[in-house]
Amino acid sequence: MNGMEVVVYLMLLTGCLAASKLHQVIDNGHSFNVTVNDILIFQHTYDNPMLYVGMGRTNFLEFRGNFRIDNDINRRVGLRNYTYQNFNWTDEIDFLMDDHQLRFRITTYTDKSVGIEIINNGIEYDYLWFRVVAEASEQVYGLGEQFSHLNLREFSYTPGKDPELFSVSRSRDRIYPIWTREQGVGRDKHDQVTFFADKMSGAGGDYHTTYFPQATFISSRKYLFHYDWYNYAEFDFSHNQYHEVFIKGEFSNLAIIPRDNMVDLVKSFVADTPLGKMAPLPSWLRDGIILGVQGGTDIMLKRLKTAQDQGVAVNGLWIQDWAGIKNTTFGQRLFWNWKWNPKRYPGLDQKIKDLKAQGVKVLAYINPNLNIEGDLYKTASSQGFVVKNRTGNPYLLDFGEFLCGIVDLTNPAAFNWYKGQIKTNIIDLGLSGWMADFGEYLPVDAVVFDKTLSIEMVHNQWPVLWAKCNRQAVEESGKLGEIVFWMRAGAAHTSNYTTLMWAGDQNVDFSYGDGLPSTIIAATSMGLSGTGLTHFDIGGYTTFGSLGLRRTAELLLRSAEMAVFTPVMRTHEGNQPDFNVQAYSNQYILLQFARLVQIYRMLGNYTTSVIQTCVRDGIPAQRPLVLHYQNDPVAVNAKYQYMYGSDLLIAPVIQANVTSQKVYLPQGEWVFLWNTSTQTAGNKYITVPAPIGQPPVFYQKTSPYSATFNAISKIPLVPPPPTTNQPSTKAPGSSNSGVLTATNSVLLLLTLYTQLMYNFSI
Amino acid sequence: MNGMEVVVYLMLLTGCLAASKLHQVIDNGHSFNVTVNDILIFQHTYDNPMLYVGMGRTNFLEFRGNFRIDNDINRRVGLRNYTYQNFNWTDEIDFLMDDHQLRFRITTYTDKSVGIEIINNGIEYDYLWFRVVAEASEQVYGLGEQFSHLNLREFSYTPGKDPELFSVSRSRDRIYPIWTREQGVGRDKHDQVTFFADKMSGAGGDYHTTYFPQATFISSRKYLFHYDWYNYAEFDFSHNQYHEVFIKGEFSNLAIIPRDNMVDLVKSFVADTPLGKMAPLPSWLRDGIILGVQGGTDIMLKRLKTAQDQGVAVNGLWIQDWAGIKNTTFGQRLFWNWKWNPKRYPGLDQKIKDLKAQGVKVLAYINPNLNIEGDLYKTASSQGFVVKNRTGNPYLLDFGEFLCGIVDLTNPAAFNWYKGQIKTNIIDLGLSGWMADFGEYLPVDAVVFDKTLSIEMVHNQWPVLWAKCNRQAVEESGKLGEIVFWMRAGAAHTSNYTTLMWAGDQNVDFSYGDGLPSTIIAATSMGLSGTGLTHFDIGGYTTFGSLGLRRTAELLLRSAEMAVFTPVMRTHEGNQPDFNVQAYSNQYILLQFARLVQIYRMLGNYTTSVIQTCVRDGIPAQRPLVLHYQNDPVAVNAKYQYMYGSDLLIAPVIQANVTSQKVYLPQGEWVFLWNTSTQTAGNKYITVPAPIGQPPVFYQKTSPYSATFNAISKIPLVPPPPTTNQPSTKAPGSSNSGVLTATNSVLLLLTLYTQLMYNFSI
Repeated sequence: MNGMEVVVYLMLLTGCLAASKLHQVIDNGHSFNVTVNDILIFQHTYDNPMLYVGMGRTNFLEFRGNFRIDNDINRRVGLRNYTYQNFNWTDEIDFLMDDHQLRFRITTYTDKSVGIEIINNGIEYDYLWFRVVAEASEQVYGLGEQFSHLNLREFSYTPGKDPELFSVSRSRDRIYPIWTREQGVGRDKHDQVTFFADKMSGAGGDYHTTYFPQATFISSRKYLFHYDWYNYAEFDFSHNQYHEVFIKGEFSNLAIIPRDNMVDLVKSFVADTPLGKMAPLPSWLRDGIILGVQGGTDIMLKRLKTAQDQGVAVNGLWIQDWAGIKNTTFGQRLFWNWKWNPKRYPGLDQKIKDLKAQGVKVLAYINPNLNIEGDLYKTASSQGFVVKNRTGNPYLLDFGEFLCGIVDLTNPAAFNWYKGQIKTNIIDLGLSGWMADFGEYLPVDAVVFDKTLSIEMVHNQWPVLWAKCNRQAVEESGKLGEIVFWMRAGAAHTSNYTTLMWAGDQNVDFSYGDGLPSTIIAATSMGLSGTGLTHFDIGGYTTFGSLGLRRTAELLLRSAEMAVFTPVMRTHEGNQPDFNVQAYSNQYILLQFARLVQIYRMLGNYTTSVIQTCVRDGIPAQRPLVLHYQNDPVAVNAKYQYMYGSDLLIAPVIQANVTSQKVYLPQGEWVFLWNTSTQTAGNKYITVPAPIGQPPVFYQKTSPYSATFNAISKIPLVPPPPTTNQPSTKAPGSSNSGVLTATNSVLLLLTLYTQLMYNFSI
Repeated sequence: MNGMEVVVYLMLLTGCLAASKLHQVIDNGHSFNVTVNDILIFQHTYDNPMLYVGMGRTNFLEFRGNFRIDNDINRRVGLRNYTYQNFNWTDEIDFLMDDHQLRFRITTYTDKSVGIEIINNGIEYDYLWFRVVAEASEQVYGLGEQFSHLNLREFSYTPGKDPELFSVSRSRDRIYPIWTREQGVGRDKHDQVTFFADKMSGAGGDYHTTYFPQATFISSRKYLFHYDWYNYAEFDFSHNQYHEVFIKGEFSNLAIIPRDNMVDLVKSFVADTPLGKMAPLPSWLRDGIILGVQGGTDIMLKRLKTAQDQGVAVNGLWIQDWAGIKNTTFGQRLFWNWKWNPKRYPGLDQKIKDLKAQGVKVLAYINPNLNIEGDLYKTASSQGFVVKNRTGNPYLLDFGEFLCGIVDLTNPAAFNWYKGQIKTNIIDLGLSGWMADFGEYLPVDAVVFDKTLSIEMVHNQWPVLWAKCNRQAVEESGKLGEIVFWMRAGAAHTSNYTTLMWAGDQNVDFSYGDGLPSTIIAATSMGLSGTGLTHFDIGGYTTFGSLGLRRTAELLLRSAEMAVFTPVMRTHEGNQPDFNVQAYSNQYILLQFARLVQIYRMLGNYTTSVIQTCVRDGIPAQRPLVLHYQNDPVAVNAKYQYMYGSDLLIAPVIQANVTSQKVYLPQGEWVFLWNTSTQTAGNKYITVPAPIGQPPVFYQKTSPYSATFNAISKIPLVPPPPTTNQPSTKAPGSSNSGVLTATNSVLLLLTLYTQLMYNFSI
């Protein structure tokens, strides 16, 4: 949403004022309360002001999409005194400072939504803080895509840790910045992979680092908080009596939307905010699995045949190296020049057609950066279409032995040119989709064409511009509903443009901070922020072979069996394919995949209805238990189980060596998917067997899809492989023989570094 | 210094006003400058106020002496407006806020010192910040005992790290809290030992964690800043144009003392502050080395004989387990009941006499905590002599399978009782010294007898009370100058009471954060803060056998050769003796020690003069180069070389596998200690051979001690051992067979933990 769109949005809302006023200001002269639908939202007294302003400087120190952010706060003052004026639909509180005022304007738009603006009359400030009333037992959810916490106020500790120790404190560990960036490698300061990533390049991440932050949350006190702009912000959920919101720069529009229950709160994203609806996903996605493969036309076809020979229903081949490769001292990298490379993929144009006729689509990869050695960069830079540095020259990002320019998506001419490249080079070639990678790296010392917004806001808005460019290319080609592109970077309004999200780069492990478990929270928190269609890399991505972080067959299969209960199944070879077990590694694994994809296909009608509900009402496909069971004290904090649609409860296996698992069943009548004779009323825990291929899943006994579920229960398990030996976790060959993928190139350095440096004796 | 002493100090200073006013306030109505001896110290404008007040809450989260401290700052306001009044020797600036004032009173006391008080007239605040003018190129030194940075504004990066990366930023990495605590294990967030210590128990420490912080610094702008009280404080040296000092709670007295050079600045500690002089060290210390041994009378005597047989001049046997041991599941721990245990040390009383007659003293160990299983605790608690918790019961600290009470040193009766125990149990037994360990752990939720000060101030003052208790025991026994006790914990005024410091618990490695190199900065930074006599554990202390952190012969010998050039030589077996090479491990090492102690003894007269200078003028024994070469741009940042006295320049070998080393020589004529034919003028680097036993040392050609140094140059190196194999780094036996020492019991948990958990494959 650009500046003009904001105005339109406000006019729209102002145009249809409510039948009755939703908010109330109760003023006592020296203190006031603001309620929305009788929920106390703001509370102001002289001693505990609700609004603060401050001066200072924020440093954004970047290294390849990883940021260290420090606020150097020089001044922070609560605005104690105020005057109050009541209009028809609007209340205005003028907070006073010296001879100036900050006007806090509260308006009931429609009968469903309260809007808040802040109009500054002469107060100089860099920062603004305001407090929202909280209760000690309250839960909050959302803030875009989170990976570590579902309830963002969660007062908990990492399993196995002594709660008396440091890691437990909620203080300072429940502050969530709104800043799009790399999610980080490990994302847990007590994790060894994080430690090494931090040591090498500050790339370890933290509990709050995410590609897709959004200043939106839902409170168990039954309101939705949606701030509709791109400021650098921080949400401090560490206090018992209030939430404190920190906004850098000028305040835009905040909506407080009360509803009676969580489902209606989520529905209001579509109904009552400008976030809008997602488009329906192409139906061909439900026909099978997209295999992430690479290496050229022959290898691609060989992988397809290997999979099909074992009965895997493949509906897509995703070839990220379609534009060619570049040799570096770290190994092979993608050549970031986004068009078909006939040398690497001879005859691809014809193969795309042939495969499509067989029901197999081909998909590609792009990102908003261009290798300066490619012709696309040359065209872009010669026309002034790339982001500049302060000297007026192209801003070049070092991605590891190659430099890239950044297409300036704020420049309409550049935007259109890049959109044209997508149409010509990808869509016209017959490709059916692509990973639209990156979008988080715009440096804060860059200079962009459109100077309407501060560069920090442009940084946070960048993923939306990037999504919009892709979406328009698809729409203008008339292919919406046929083509799918998937993104990791996001911000408010991403849901208006992207066709699908994915959870980014997980470690190929079971770690809570960055492994398979984190993809569950990624989906459910994103769902509670208005973006309900996402998926993840089956098997994870981030491999760190020299550190022992390699993908096992168990992890691959556990993540594949979970992906059955998501809208899209797609594999990734990972950044070091040779250290990872792959879908095509051996017959046993292929048979497992064949069976899982069969089940996924059997779920097709159900999945279609789940997606339809999401598109229509904004109810996400993967739903945290709290969405449907908000009064259940276990459900409200259940972060590693989810509902897939309203009928299936999934408790994915997220640890190694599991043979059975304890599952929480909320109220209802539940049937165990893999043995329908196990039926039980909910409101309790139950332990069920959980062999590979049968993750704990229950369905509602009353589900109209019971026949489908019952049919699934008849599908036998894949028999164990002839030898009891598990397949080796390491394929032959060195880590550098495969093509290293483009995402998060920091890993390349890490790998090299640890190969050289990891000589600490044990 | 208690409250009354502060008053006396002020009166003393006020009583002898200067002949001319040292400070000036230049007021322009809306802004002012304050100079001291023409150095601009404070600068105030409406837009950039020098003084800020704030409200908030500070959380001190403790685990066994390790603290996580968070300031939750709710309000921070610069005081922009002021009125100014000029008196004879005093200037008063009343900063205005609403109807209240904060009076900033600047007084020239004597002609050498300017004092600053702040008198609050009605302003409510929890925090106070003020800014001291800085220049971009300025250096600052001090803040008590620091381990990582000598120049506290150092803009540098860890060797081997890319300066473009995160670890380099000065922002937020040059903030130094004033809070006594464990120094931490590793003390470098990029170090693996730190990572594991943090993971287990938050015990990893950081660049600023120290046992002995002190709100005192010296600026290259030629003034001394001495704040003479115990508030929790933070010194922020991360800004180019100012230093910002944060004080929690009521402000006490600040002195700004200008001098023409660094030596005079350091001299002013003794001459112009209440810090006073240290006592002379007993002369017997110069007769040899104190061996840290344990295990009972027989083993003690066996170790002595082994050492003497190889010619090691032993002047002391330090037996930390003199009070007995306690078996735990981690292994043997000391029994914290500070009196002779005749079971473990049969006949010790007589042996002390016998050994003393042979010139060998026996030394012991105590700390301010008492195991509740011991009779000392029973006596203390029955008389109400222990610190209480909020329920009024004894505050018990868990040190790892045993609980301790804390003697309440703020209670005069308890203080005197404990002092009596030291006299009776230690001094009367004939012991000649002891490690007076700990002093950093007082929890902030404890309740002490004397409620004059806040518990936070008592926490920071605790090391001084503990030092005072020991000192009075020695003095009242008439043994000052005969007995030595050494401490790690400290604060302002420690120098008035302790007889000697030591650098605490280093890792048994060469790491910069916590290994041998850090002991150099410990000595020099402490020296620039007014405490000039310290030493360190030869070989280090913190062993982490299961992680590969074990003491090698090389580390042991490199640290022993450095200790020659310090006031006192003393070994420590470390917390896991069996993982460490020991002074008595084999003949080769003993011969090396024999030679090094011989050299140390030959330096005796020189050392005596160095100590005399320290006692008289406050000039430390180990001096950073900047003290004598403040105009030399290399010297001002040289952190790993030091002057021992004024005639010897030491460049200790602080890395493994060194055979030669580059040394910086400042202006002067220098002679290489180990080959006096190497003579050169300074102001340059020179590379010299550095075999084990001959660390790079130069002496001033004009030194009156040239004959001594020349004699030392004739001492031959110890020939290499018969086999070229280095001695094994691991002695036979398990890590638990030795007595685990008492200091930093967190390590026990760490060790256990890593044995259980460290299964990350490489």
